[in-house]
Amino acid sequence: MFIALEGGDGAGKSTQIKRLTRNLQDTGHTVLTTREPGGSPMGEEIRDLVLNPAYAPVGARTEALLFAASRSAHVETVIRPALQRGEVVVTDRYLDSSVAYQGAGRGLGTAVVRDLNTWAVSGLMPDLTVLLDVSAATGRARRSSRTEDRMEQESEEFHDQVRQAFLDLAAQSPDRYLVLPADSPVPALAERIAARAQEILGARRLP
Amino acid sequence: MFIALEGGDGAGKSTQIKRLTRNLQDTGHTVLTTREPGGSPMGEEIRDLVLNPAYAPVGARTEALLFAASRSAHVETVIRPALQRGEVVVTDRYLDSSVAYQGAGRGLGTAVVRDLNTWAVSGLMPDLTVLLDVSAATGRARRSSRTEDRMEQESEEFHDQVRQAFLDLAAQSPDRYLVLPADSPVPALAERIAARAQEILGARRLP
Repeated sequence: MFIALEGGDGAGKSTQIKRLTRNLQDTGHTVLTTREPGGSPMGEEIRDLVLNPAYAPVGARTEALLFAASRSAHVETVIRPALQRGEVVVTDRYLDSSVAYQGAGRGLGTAVVRDLNTWAVSGLMPDLTVLLDVSAATGRARRSSRTEDRMEQESEEFHDQVRQAFLDLAAQSPDRYLVLPADSPVPALAERIAARAQEILGARRLP
Repeated sequence: MFIALEGGDGAGKSTQIKRLTRNLQDTGHTVLTTREPGGSPMGEEIRDLVLNPAYAPVGARTEALLFAASRSAHVETVIRPALQRGEVVVTDRYLDSSVAYQGAGRGLGTAVVRDLNTWAVSGLMPDLTVLLDVSAATGRARRSSRTEDRMEQESEEFHDQVRQAFLDLAAQSPDRYLVLPADSPVPALAERIAARAQEILGARRLP
């Protein structure tokens, strides 16, 4: 079982990932929690490279290729091995983040970025993608206390395009997506996410 | 005018690049000499990452994406600006190296690697590609004195596939390619390369 949490920066993904991980562990599952970009030693090196403001400006295609390379290493060395061991993998961001940020936000086109990344991961897609939908303004306010990386420093218009792209992706794959308003109370969100994850895990246990 | 030198490791590209650069400078051209992977600050960081044996094994797709990212940064920040200033750019390796090494050598397929890289560089191809054709055995003997990177450590079969891929690429683009046997005397090779480069530059000067 492979679960991805997606959404703009400041949507509260980290909090929900902690809660979901605890819920899954409490019900007897081994959970691997990971993140993108990064998630593997090579992937983390690439993450540092692409998000470090010292290297700005980074071309849109270079950025998209680096994220795809990082994701490819992440899938091959971390995610697939864990899935093969029968673990539940929960990742903070996955392929749809590239479609939204590089495809829509940077204007490279969502189809080409999706194809590039589908090749990078040899077709591995999550069983469940949770979208914590957040407005650009709310996201900015919620992350105001931390140092922003190169992506978070982008304009409100950029973040609006990213948000819309996530909503479009969810509409195209309703079976895979659970869309939740990020400004709901944390416990209510946690409950809905856990319920959907357990529902999918339960369905798999049936003969 | 954009010139790439291609060929297996140990083919003698560096020596010929120095001679070609001098010939072009002597005839009044401003020459930018560069190399791949690398060629830009971001590109060099990626080069270190992908060739460093400490990170092995690197997945074939990860490797191909990293080389494409490095190339994208190289073209955008170094090669295109120099061409726009009217300079002659001479690069040690370019896109066809990825087609040969990752597409053929690693078995990813030459078409997908070519398409990936064509996108990475927004279609920029050399006006002249010089292939210094070298057998795997000769290449190995000629580079025996230096420390081998992760690519050079590959098997003779790998290097044979790379060699064949370069010859196939040359056959597909005879107008762009000049194929020379790498074991010819250095001055004779230098003369033939300079002659072809000057011929193309001369043709461009005609009204």
